[in-house]
Amino acid sequence: MVGLGPGDAALLAPMAEAALAEAHCIVGYGPYVDLVSPALLAGKDVVATGMTGEVARCRAALEAAAAGRRVVLVSSGDAGVYGMAGLALEMLDAMGLPQALEFSVVPGIPAVCAAAALLGAPLTHDFAVISLSDLLTPLPVIEARLEAAFAADFVVAIYNPRSRKRSGHLAEALARAARHRDPQTPVGMVKNAFRPAQEIRLTSLAQADPDWADMLTLVVVGNSSSRLAAGRFLTPRGYAGKYALEG
Amino acid sequence: MVGLGPGDAALLAPMAEAALAEAHCIVGYGPYVDLVSPALLAGKDVVATGMTGEVARCRAALEAAAAGRRVVLVSSGDAGVYGMAGLALEMLDAMGLPQALEFSVVPGIPAVCAAAALLGAPLTHDFAVISLSDLLTPLPVIEARLEAAFAADFVVAIYNPRSRKRSGHLAEALARAARHRDPQTPVGMVKNAFRPAQEIRLTSLAQADPDWADMLTLVVVGNSSSRLAAGRFLTPRGYAGKYALEG
Ligand SMILES: C[S@@+](CC[C@H](N)C(=O)[O-])C[C@H]1O[C@@H](n2cnc3c(N)ncnc32)[C@H](O)[C@@H]1O
Ligand SMILES: C[S@@+](CC[C@H](N)C(=O)[O-])C[C@H]1O[C@@H](n2cnc3c(N)ncnc32)[C@H](O)[C@@H]1O
Repeated sequence: MVGLGPGDAALLAPMAEAALAEAHCIVGYGPYVDLVSPALLAGKDVVATGMTGEVARCRAALEAAAAGRRVVLVSSGDAGVYGMAGLALEMLDAMGLPQALEFSVVPGIPAVCAAAALLGAPLTHDFAVISLSDLLTPLPVIEARLEAAFAADFVVAIYNPRSRKRSGHLAEALARAARHRDPQTPVGMVKNAFRPAQEIRLTSLAQADPDWADMLTLVVVGNSSSRLAAGRFLTPRGYAGKYALEG
Repeated sequence: MVGLGPGDAALLAPMAEAALAEAHCIVGYGPYVDLVSPALLAGKDVVATGMTGEVARCRAALEAAAAGRRVVLVSSGDAGVYGMAGLALEMLDAMGLPQALEFSVVPGIPAVCAAAALLGAPLTHDFAVISLSDLLTPLPVIEARLEAAFAADFVVAIYNPRSRKRSGHLAEALARAARHRDPQTPVGMVKNAFRPAQEIRLTSLAQADPDWADMLTLVVVGNSSSRLAAGRFLTPRGYAGKYALEG
C-alpha cells in the first residue's frame, strides 16, 4: 500500500519510490496511476481502474499478490487516510489470505497536510478530519461528527467536500460551523494542492463560497483562536499567553 | 518550515531535502536536527536548541532570515501538526516582519500517518487528532475534545500521551474512551515510528497499558467499527455493507 502524496513527485519519499520500483505490478485508480512517473511504470503490469472500481481494484491486487507477485496498490496522499489500505486489509481478511501474504503500508503526505502547508499553519492545534462523502457513510453520522467537532472547538479539515450527486454538503457544513464560530474565522480551500492546476483560497466563514470547491479540494475551517497572520491562516498553539513573542 | 517526517531518511521527500540542501542556516530542536543527514548539515550554520526553547529557536530563525539568510526551521513529522510552522508564523506577525520575508512550509509525513501505517489501516474513517500536552492548553479543553471525539465515534489519534510532569493523562483518556466504546476496541501504540528503537503494540481498550507510552509514542483508539483484521488494526470504510468482499 503506497500513498503517492498530493501529486508533485518532489513530495514522494524514497521509500515509496523504492516500493514502486521493486513492484511487478502496480494497481490503482487511473488518475492516481498517472501521478507515477513513466520510468517507474515501465515494464510493469499496470492495472488502472475507474473511480468506483475500488473493490475490483483491491481484488486484482490481492489475487496478483496471492499468485506470488510483488504488488503495489497506490492511493493519493497517505494510503491510510480514506485510502485503499483499509479496503485491502478488509478484503485480505475476508478472502482468507492473511497468512500467505506480506502486507505493508508506506505512509505518505496526506492532502490535509499538503493543503495546510499552502495555507500557512492551520493545524497547530487539535483537529478533526471529516469526509463529506455519503456514499459509504450515512449523512446523519457525518452531520453529528461535524457538530461535535465544531462544538468542541477543533480545527476541521474537510475531505470530499463535493460529491458527484450532491453539491450542498459543504454549504451545510459551513452553515453549521457558522453557528459555532465567529464570521471572521478563517476558511482555507485548496484545489489540486501541489499539482499543476493548484488554486488556493483563503477566506472567512462569512465570505466562503462553497460552490468553488470541487472533488479535488481540501477545506480547512479554523477553531475559535484561528486568525490571519502575515496574510496566512494561523491557528496559534498558545505560546502568546506564556511568552513575549514580539521582536 | 520543513517537516522531517517520522525519522527514517527514506521518508524524507526530495522537496524537503532540497530545502535543507539550499539553506544557509538550519534551526531546530537538537534531536530533530540530529535526524538530518550530516551531509546536509555540512558547511551550514546549525542552531540546535533544547526542548522548551521554541520561542528562542523561532526568534533565531526569523532574525537570520531578516538578515537575508535562507533559513530552514525543522520539525519532526509535518511542520504544521503541533510543529514549528505555527509559532514561526505567529512571531513573524508579532515581530512585524511579514513583508520582508518569504515564508513557506514544505509538508511532511506526520507521526499519525507513520504510526497508522505500522498498525494497519486505523484511519480509513473520520478521525480526530488530539494532544494531551497541557503545557499550552488547559486540561478542561483537552478533556472536552476527547469527550466530543469519543462520543461522535471518531477514531482518535493521541499525540504527546505523556508529559514530563504528569503521567496520568493517557490513563484518563483511555478510561474516557472506555465509557463510549467496547472493551475490545483496538488501541495501537507506536513508539519511535520509523526510527531504530521502533516498537509497536496492538492491543485493546481492556488491555492497553498507558504506562507503556512515553514522549515519543503515538496512540490510536478505534471507532465503534474498528477491529482486528489479518492481525492488523482496521477501521472499515463501509464497503462491506455495499459489496461482496469475499474471494
Ligand atoms: C479518496 S480521498 C483520498 C485522500 C488521500 N488518501 C489523502 O491521504 O489525502 C480524495 C479526497 O482527498 C482530497 N485530496 C486528495 N488530493 C488532493 C490534492 N492534491 N489537493 C486537494 N485535495 C486533495 C480531496 O478532498 C479529495 O476529495
Ligand atoms: C511536538 S509533537 C510533533 C509532531 C510532528 N510535527 C508530527 O507531525 O507528527 C511530538 C509528538 O509527536 C509524536 N511523534 C513524533 N514523532 C514520532 C514517531 N517517530 N513515533 C511516534 N510518535 C511520534 C509523539 O506523540 C510526540 O509526543
